[in-house]
Amino acid sequence: MTKRIAILGASGYTGAELVRLIATHPSMEIAALAGDRKAGEALGTVFPHLRHLDLPVLQKFEEIDFGNIDLAFGALPHGTSQEIISALPGHVKAVDLSAGFRLRDPAVYEQWYGAPHAAMALQDEAVYGLTEWYRDEIREARIVAGTGCNAATGNLAVLPLLKDGVIDADEIIISLATGVSGAGRSPKEGMLHAEVSEGFHAYALTGHRHMAEFEQEFSKVAGKPVTCTFVPHLLPQNRGILATIYVKGEAEAIHAALEKAYADEPFMVVLPLGEAPSTRHVRGSNFCHLGVVKDRREGRAIVFSALDNLNKGSSGQAIQNANLMLGLEETEGLMLAPMFP
Amino acid sequence: MTKRIAILGASGYTGAELVRLIATHPSMEIAALAGDRKAGEALGTVFPHLRHLDLPVLQKFEEIDFGNIDLAFGALPHGTSQEIISALPGHVKAVDLSAGFRLRDPAVYEQWYGAPHAAMALQDEAVYGLTEWYRDEIREARIVAGTGCNAATGNLAVLPLLKDGVIDADEIIISLATGVSGAGRSPKEGMLHAEVSEGFHAYALTGHRHMAEFEQEFSKVAGKPVTCTFVPHLLPQNRGILATIYVKGEAEAIHAALEKAYADEPFMVVLPLGEAPSTRHVRGSNFCHLGVVKDRREGRAIVFSALDNLNKGSSGQAIQNANLMLGLEETEGLMLAPMFP
Amino acid sequence: MTKRIAILGASGYTGAELVRLIATHPSMEIAALAGDRKAGEALGTVFPHLRHLDLPVLQKFEEIDFGNIDLAFGALPHGTSQEIISALPGHVKAVDLSAGFRLRDPAVYEQWYGAPHAAMALQDEAVYGLTEWYRDEIREARIVAGTGCNAATGNLAVLPLLKDGVIDADEIIISLATGVSGAGRSPKEGMLHAEVSEGFHAYALTGHRHMAEFEQEFSKVAGKPVTCTFVPHLLPQNRGILATIYVKGEAEAIHAALEKAYADEPFMVVLPLGEAPSTRHVRGSNFCHLGVVKDRREGRAIVFSALDNLNKGSSGQAIQNANLMLGLEETEGLMLAPMFP
Amino acid sequence: MTKRIAILGASGYTGAELVRLIATHPSMEIAALAGDRKAGEALGTVFPHLRHLDLPVLQKFEEIDFGNIDLAFGALPHGTSQEIISALPGHVKAVDLSAGFRLRDPAVYEQWYGAPHAAMALQDEAVYGLTEWYRDEIREARIVAGTGCNAATGNLAVLPLLKDGVIDADEIIISLATGVSGAGRSPKEGMLHAEVSEGFHAYALTGHRHMAEFEQEFSKVAGKPVTCTFVPHLLPQNRGILATIYVKGEAEAIHAALEKAYADEPFMVVLPLGEAPSTRHVRGSNFCHLGVVKDRREGRAIVFSALDNLNKGSSGQAIQNANLMLGLEETEGLMLAPMFP
Repeated sequence: MTKRIAILGASGYTGAELVRLIATHPSMEIAALAGDRKAGEALGTVFPHLRHLDLPVLQKFEEIDFGNIDLAFGALPHGTSQEIISALPGHVKAVDLSAGFRLRDPAVYEQWYGAPHAAMALQDEAVYGLTEWYRDEIREARIVAGTGCNAATGNLAVLPLLKDGVIDADEIIISLATGVSGAGRSPKEGMLHAEVSEGFHAYALTGHRHMAEFEQEFSKVAGKPVTCTFVPHLLPQNRGILATIYVKGEAEAIHAALEKAYADEPFMVVLPLGEAPSTRHVRGSNFCHLGVVKDRREGRAIVFSALDNLNKGSSGQAIQNANLMLGLEETEGLMLAPMFP
Repeated sequence: MTKRIAILGASGYTGAELVRLIATHPSMEIAALAGDRKAGEALGTVFPHLRHLDLPVLQKFEEIDFGNIDLAFGALPHGTSQEIISALPGHVKAVDLSAGFRLRDPAVYEQWYGAPHAAMALQDEAVYGLTEWYRDEIREARIVAGTGCNAATGNLAVLPLLKDGVIDADEIIISLATGVSGAGRSPKEGMLHAEVSEGFHAYALTGHRHMAEFEQEFSKVAGKPVTCTFVPHLLPQNRGILATIYVKGEAEAIHAALEKAYADEPFMVVLPLGEAPSTRHVRGSNFCHLGVVKDRREGRAIVFSALDNLNKGSSGQAIQNANLMLGLEETEGLMLAPMFP
Repeated sequence: MTKRIAILGASGYTGAELVRLIATHPSMEIAALAGDRKAGEALGTVFPHLRHLDLPVLQKFEEIDFGNIDLAFGALPHGTSQEIISALPGHVKAVDLSAGFRLRDPAVYEQWYGAPHAAMALQDEAVYGLTEWYRDEIREARIVAGTGCNAATGNLAVLPLLKDGVIDADEIIISLATGVSGAGRSPKEGMLHAEVSEGFHAYALTGHRHMAEFEQEFSKVAGKPVTCTFVPHLLPQNRGILATIYVKGEAEAIHAALEKAYADEPFMVVLPLGEAPSTRHVRGSNFCHLGVVKDRREGRAIVFSALDNLNKGSSGQAIQNANLMLGLEETEGLMLAPMFP
Repeated sequence: MTKRIAILGASGYTGAELVRLIATHPSMEIAALAGDRKAGEALGTVFPHLRHLDLPVLQKFEEIDFGNIDLAFGALPHGTSQEIISALPGHVKAVDLSAGFRLRDPAVYEQWYGAPHAAMALQDEAVYGLTEWYRDEIREARIVAGTGCNAATGNLAVLPLLKDGVIDADEIIISLATGVSGAGRSPKEGMLHAEVSEGFHAYALTGHRHMAEFEQEFSKVAGKPVTCTFVPHLLPQNRGILATIYVKGEAEAIHAALEKAYADEPFMVVLPLGEAPSTRHVRGSNFCHLGVVKDRREGRAIVFSALDNLNKGSSGQAIQNANLMLGLEETEGLMLAPMFP
């Protein structure tokens, strides 16, 4: 039976990507769209690429009738999100794409996000939405917290290695590059085309918030506190994240650990040993490509992880989780092949 | 029942786009892939974005068993194409994406393509694949000739205006800009990233081959010889064509003619009068967005047409035609929403 | 003797381009930089590409000591500019890059800019800064109004043709495409990288303000009211304008008129008949490349004009004018070769 | 007195960049241009951005009269280069931009370049062209070997740290990203716009040739064999290299070492501690921007180095060296400010 979906925060890029994906999802229909600033407008005006779709008009959150909504996606800023998700009726499941429910420890949340957690009751039942690692809990969850897009990219590559103990947990360096859509649609000088194109630089030099998700998940899997070096860079492209991860360990064992971890996963592609992925080959899709290359230095390897930040890193992951929560086939609506070129 | 498809020339961009689209097409399966230079390779090696798919290995054309193939897509250079399509067994329908069968007059073909037509017998039964204008013939055809991507962009905008007589047929100027993927995957100096990015220029200054398709179709619909000015430009982007068409006529009548022509068309979107489309809002899709704007000069208007050259301009159009030829729903596999950003 | 220069509005792109050019100008030195919002900051903080230069700190306009300033460049919004330029001491010459002084008729100014002209006294002495057409007046002027960047691109191509009467003045269509830097550095949603890259569209559909400059100059040279069709498009690139101009006239006569007009001009390059320019080949320079191509339709031609909007279209032109006003060699500091790739 | 310059291999990007820079160099003039495949053509045909210049026609190498040439730049493939440079008359100084003379140990050359060194006699007198580290030798040299562009980027950042012993020489990881122009102008599928734009990936996975220059120079300065991890990535942009270097050491000491090393260098800009450079802020210039950021992990730091691969990484560096060799001011012709945006 078709599930009725509400998207809260439909005027941002992750909201638009949810709509794009649900447009061809065989078991979901969009029953409500909330977007406070754009309430009253058609989504086709806000996002002309969606103008062929027959969609409900954007409403204010409080105007939505949640009576027959099965699941809501929250694509809102993290502060707002905690409050809005808390206000949902109990029968509505939720996948929140913000940072609102990603961190289990409220002190850590406050440290990185600069404000106390506003919905601790819900936090305790929220499941971290890294599907391949929390599938069983997600299936039973009412609230799932979408991961950070950078966090997903790194965690998917590193967790199997920590689990199998094939790398030195104290020597992990994540050198990551991301496209601009992760920064959202709010106008900022640094995100103008003239500022971004034909250039490359590192950002968040005093620490990127997704670091908290690395530490949380690395430590959980390793069974001890683990931190790492994490330097994100901004790419002159719209979509895609590539994490280049420098580790201590044998390339063969690392590659075997990844193959073992993801042998039956529909969206995880482990390349042959010695090959490296490209963001362009996962663009617009829910696939994550992993690669392992032997370093020239003995006992070291480089692990690569590539995904589309708006899709597998965010809206695709959210639908994958929603499929599980709604008892649908996990891959429904998500088998779109990447778009290249 | 699932139709069995062969793709001849699968190692180019239009071939890859066919595979991408068929990957989620509910009634087609890829039964054979031909690619002479890459015979023996997996398509996932040639196009890593398709590596998650379970596809037949690339073969030489003569190795393919066409016994149970329903339809073949030809994604080959135009010279080769005439010969290959002629060699297909009679039970195999074909949509040829090359220029091999686009021009009904062999003299015109020779004039623009510099060689005599090599398959005139087939030419007579080939239908020009502009779906919205030849739907009935396409449904019955064994051979359909995919249109030029620029030609599709202009023809879809201009034909309704000539048909309804709302513009002066002698005063049509098509100023067009196209992304680089239309030039194909063969290495050429002028298509290097360093040559294309951060720049814009007109090309084919002595006459672009798609002009022949404008003249053929314009004249047919107008019922008299019609030519036009046509200047293509190369955009520093991968996909997308925008035709900006300067015409003599009243904007309101022009807009009405477009709305009338395409009222029931699933892929044609006529924007409200005064709005103009963008290539980014049709990217990766089979949609074509049309717009009409009144000029400041009396009695003149500007008509815009935007589509994705690899999709609606080529591989999407081909599948739309194949759907008709195979008795499938015309929109099957083609309702993917555009990808933005 | 070195001339002392003030730049008013140094925190925008045209301001930065002025600084870049003056950095290697043998007869100018930057004596003062005004930038109200950034007053107190070093320009190297606002524009890190200029951090190697030893420059005065940004000041508020009223803090500048104009006592020994020879010439001021105004790189401010047009409203502000009229007031600021009026407030300059009489011994200070000024080149204003805004629209404040471009239009001789105050009614036309008000029509296009939506506010009455605030400095009519100065307007009467201001010279329109299209150097190649107003060189003698500029040499004597105290106030020169920099032209619109699109206006410069079109005017440089069309004025010689109207002057020599080799085209039909009633049949001019300017189809123009411009890079994003012309929109300035203020954050706007439509100028974000994710909105601009991989896409192309027309803008200013109800009429672009630079149209007023076409009408003013075309009419003046033609000796009768002339208007035209003008459609600007936004390119996914940072710099560069290409005007593709569709005209009625003989290509040979048009080409001859351009060659005659610009035979002795240091920055105007007329390509051989049949060739067309590219924005990438003038990037970062004060050169303008012109080309003429015969149309397939009898008695028609296409004229191309390419320049760098921040340089020849704005800051380079401004320095060219300032050189004349200060009695320097016109080409001083401006012979930088374009940067390609 | 003006020095007479020959450029051997003027039809590639580094050749064009040499011409661009020499065009405004006050003490150099281009007396001869060699480009075998394009002999007989004007350089303005090969590179239209240089068409305003009055340049000698391209000749075959053997046609050049070296009688009054002071210095030749070799911008040829490395194999060819060894032979051509050897054939120069003894009075002609040479800066070779290829890899032909970079590696002092012929066995290492053969290992990385797959062929025996063809000009060992000259190799012994060739000086490695990292100007800031070999200035005195370069001043006296007849043959200077331009460094690899990636090698320059890394060496300029790492050598001061090894010299001062502020980092662990066994724990250096160079994660580098480069624009496409470094790959040259020869058409290759992987360098097409459609393949490069909107994507990011690592390349040279089995070892990049510039590694040999890191090992050679690191070991020399450290006084013991030093190797490192080096992973280059390809950026969807034309120019610019950013090296992100992960090291063991105290950020403050590292920053101090860089400041000390480059205090008096005209082209080296050390940013304040905690800031990181961007390739866009050195584009088109001979500047190199260095930055140091403290890692969250104790006793570790990240060092950034950004330069323009065609300029400071290649042609700018070559002119800087040539200035020294010819007794000119080291900075002559090279103080062009970076071009942004």
